[in-house]
Amino acid sequence: MRRAVVAELLGSLLLSAAVIGSGIMAERLAGGNAAIALLANTGATVAALAVLIATLGPLSGAHFNPAVSFIAALRGELPMGRAAGFALLQCSGCCLGAILAHSMFDLSPVGLSTHVRTGGAQWISEVVATAGLVWVAFSAPSIASAAWRVPAWIGAAYWFTASTSFANPAITLARSLSDTFSGIRPMDVPGFVAAQLIGALLGYGLLRALSPRRVHA
Amino acid sequence: MRRAVVAELLGSLLLSAAVIGSGIMAERLAGGNAAIALLANTGATVAALAVLIATLGPLSGAHFNPAVSFIAALRGELPMGRAAGFALLQCSGCCLGAILAHSMFDLSPVGLSTHVRTGGAQWISEVVATAGLVWVAFSAPSIASAAWRVPAWIGAAYWFTASTSFANPAITLARSLSDTFSGIRPMDVPGFVAAQLIGALLGYGLLRALSPRRVHA
Amino acid sequence: MRRAVVAELLGSLLLSAAVIGSGIMAERLAGGNAAIALLANTGATVAALAVLIATLGPLSGAHFNPAVSFIAALRGELPMGRAAGFALLQCSGCCLGAILAHSMFDLSPVGLSTHVRTGGAQWISEVVATAGLVWVAFSAPSIASAAWRVPAWIGAAYWFTASTSFANPAITLARSLSDTFSGIRPMDVPGFVAAQLIGALLGYGLLRALSPRRVHA
Amino acid sequence: MRRAVVAELLGSLLLSAAVIGSGIMAERLAGGNAAIALLANTGATVAALAVLIATLGPLSGAHFNPAVSFIAALRGELPMGRAAGFALLQCSGCCLGAILAHSMFDLSPVGLSTHVRTGGAQWISEVVATAGLVWVAFSAPSIASAAWRVPAWIGAAYWFTASTSFANPAITLARSLSDTFSGIRPMDVPGFVAAQLIGALLGYGLLRALSPRRVHA
Repeated sequence: MRRAVVAELLGSLLLSAAVIGSGIMAERLAGGNAAIALLANTGATVAALAVLIATLGPLSGAHFNPAVSFIAALRGELPMGRAAGFALLQCSGCCLGAILAHSMFDLSPVGLSTHVRTGGAQWISEVVATAGLVWVAFSAPSIASAAWRVPAWIGAAYWFTASTSFANPAITLARSLSDTFSGIRPMDVPGFVAAQLIGALLGYGLLRALSPRRVHA
Repeated sequence: MRRAVVAELLGSLLLSAAVIGSGIMAERLAGGNAAIALLANTGATVAALAVLIATLGPLSGAHFNPAVSFIAALRGELPMGRAAGFALLQCSGCCLGAILAHSMFDLSPVGLSTHVRTGGAQWISEVVATAGLVWVAFSAPSIASAAWRVPAWIGAAYWFTASTSFANPAITLARSLSDTFSGIRPMDVPGFVAAQLIGALLGYGLLRALSPRRVHA
Repeated sequence: MRRAVVAELLGSLLLSAAVIGSGIMAERLAGGNAAIALLANTGATVAALAVLIATLGPLSGAHFNPAVSFIAALRGELPMGRAAGFALLQCSGCCLGAILAHSMFDLSPVGLSTHVRTGGAQWISEVVATAGLVWVAFSAPSIASAAWRVPAWIGAAYWFTASTSFANPAITLARSLSDTFSGIRPMDVPGFVAAQLIGALLGYGLLRALSPRRVHA
Repeated sequence: MRRAVVAELLGSLLLSAAVIGSGIMAERLAGGNAAIALLANTGATVAALAVLIATLGPLSGAHFNPAVSFIAALRGELPMGRAAGFALLQCSGCCLGAILAHSMFDLSPVGLSTHVRTGGAQWISEVVATAGLVWVAFSAPSIASAAWRVPAWIGAAYWFTASTSFANPAITLARSLSDTFSGIRPMDVPGFVAAQLIGALLGYGLLRALSPRRVHA
């Protein structure tokens, strides 16, 4: 239990630092070409996520994401109260990760983002990204397969959704504290989180529809 | 059977959304550099294809492609009537994927492409891309190996063929409904599809030529 | 035996088409930025090589490279006469691959390259690239591991050697027939091939030095 | 033992040549866009590191890094004296790798870097990069898993740390001898190495905190 707590906190922290930090580096170096910046941001996110899932998965399941813990609870894989505890750890970890990223790039610890991300197209994007994430994550038959499938989904969705696939309420919160490439305006956070929760439930429905265990349903 | 139907429909939908959506994003961000746009389009396609084959392969074989289902029927792996049913699902799924991609990027649901893709060099490209796809897909000894070999072939062929390797009649149809980076003019679709079917048969011949079961042929 | 012949011919053809074709596409799209072009050329080469080794390895060992077949003969894995036969197939396949690439991009079948690649730094580069290739290829304990290790070596060496790591006499010959991004002036071919053979022998020495079977040597 | 010595020397040499050589190539081709140069530098580093760990891991553990050998000694996996010997081999190998890279790019064998890398943000970056490296490397249950996890960590950290993640005293020393893209001013080396050693100890602490064997501690 203690190790699961450390795992969710540490994994969320490092994932958030990787997402935000690589966004800062990419924007600084890319000379204004946003596609090159997003390519680098995607590569770093995918690689960090793969390592963190593989290394921490055996300890906590490597959720790093309140939407994933919530669906795990719905599936009976952990008690809802523990999912809530995980969510708190994940939000704390991701916010600490933003602060760590800022400290590595000589920025003030926290800066509220001014990056506007709102509107129907963005919300549909987050629904799709999170539904797919939940479906892919819980379909994976092992930690080892989740360790490449989940990053592959997220890496693709960075590009094929208009929102660059946040797909994670804890990361969304942390990104609102970073006025950098990967940020989101604090007032746009609730819309994203609502879309992510709808997406998570949609992914859960998809899982049930495609489950071989539906025979007795 | 029901799960195979959902799998082919869903996989085709998400693959198409990934191909078209990432093309839109890439073109928007790339500042006019088509190589950077195609790099991003390639990465998202490869990653999405890998996840979809791994996750849906156990349910339907993860064809997502009428040319592949047609060859599977020729090989006796499924009845020709079922291959036709799959083709219908694949075309429907891919067209819905185009609409989903457009909705995520705030575009009208359907827009006929004006992207000219015709002529002998393009058709040779599609023959090569589809022949290789069929050969690689059916040579893979397991879903797990197909899940990386097929995307690797497609990712390479995005660059080494002049047509950027559509290699799939259902995706070709869907791309004609998208006036964006990855589109194709509707009047150029028949040429592409014909080349793809010729390529598929060529790939089938290659499979037979290289098959260890030729001993008694 | 017949299947090994087809495998070496086909694999060399497709590898060469992938290397040269992706170079053409990359240069056309990259708007003059050679780093972006080489990134795309690298990605396509790595992906094609991985698929070809995995798919054809069980049939012929997937050499596609006279230097590799020559070392395999030195190691007693195949008769020297057969290695010579393989080399002929590989050179033929690679040249046909150049023609195929040109036909896919609407170029005349053959065009002598004017790309100057000569001098000590280039030759040292080819020695290093080929030594590493031979060492990595024969150190791999299985086709499955060779299928990622060899492309990873080549992909890295495209960048860390000054010659972009041809490391293959058959590909070198074929590239001299293509006046495009990945070409080499015909008169520079002998220097490259000599360096590659020296590198192959160096790699062979490295293999022996690191071999556990040296105990009784 | 003899093979372990050759493995650490050769692996360090090739890793260093890959890091420095690809930096030279990338900067030459990138037309001033540092993000494109770093993308190429990252890809080559990741690919080379993966191949070297997989190929040499069975011979020496594939440390290539005094900080890793030092922690291995702390963990009781090898005597401290041998770790010191490894460190000497690693520093020699990395410096030879710099010379090899220079010779492949027609530069004088050694040139002192003028690239300023100093200050708190850089040092925090090296602490984080090295702590993560040690934690990821020793958490991997096999050479095969380390062969992708370690490069994935380093590849991500090239982007999410401000220092581009040297994370290795031997490479740091060698980079100071190269006045190219990946260099570091000699007078900045001590700060980097100190940060790396602190990071290594932090990673060691993390390993102990997350170890299942803590039950009896």
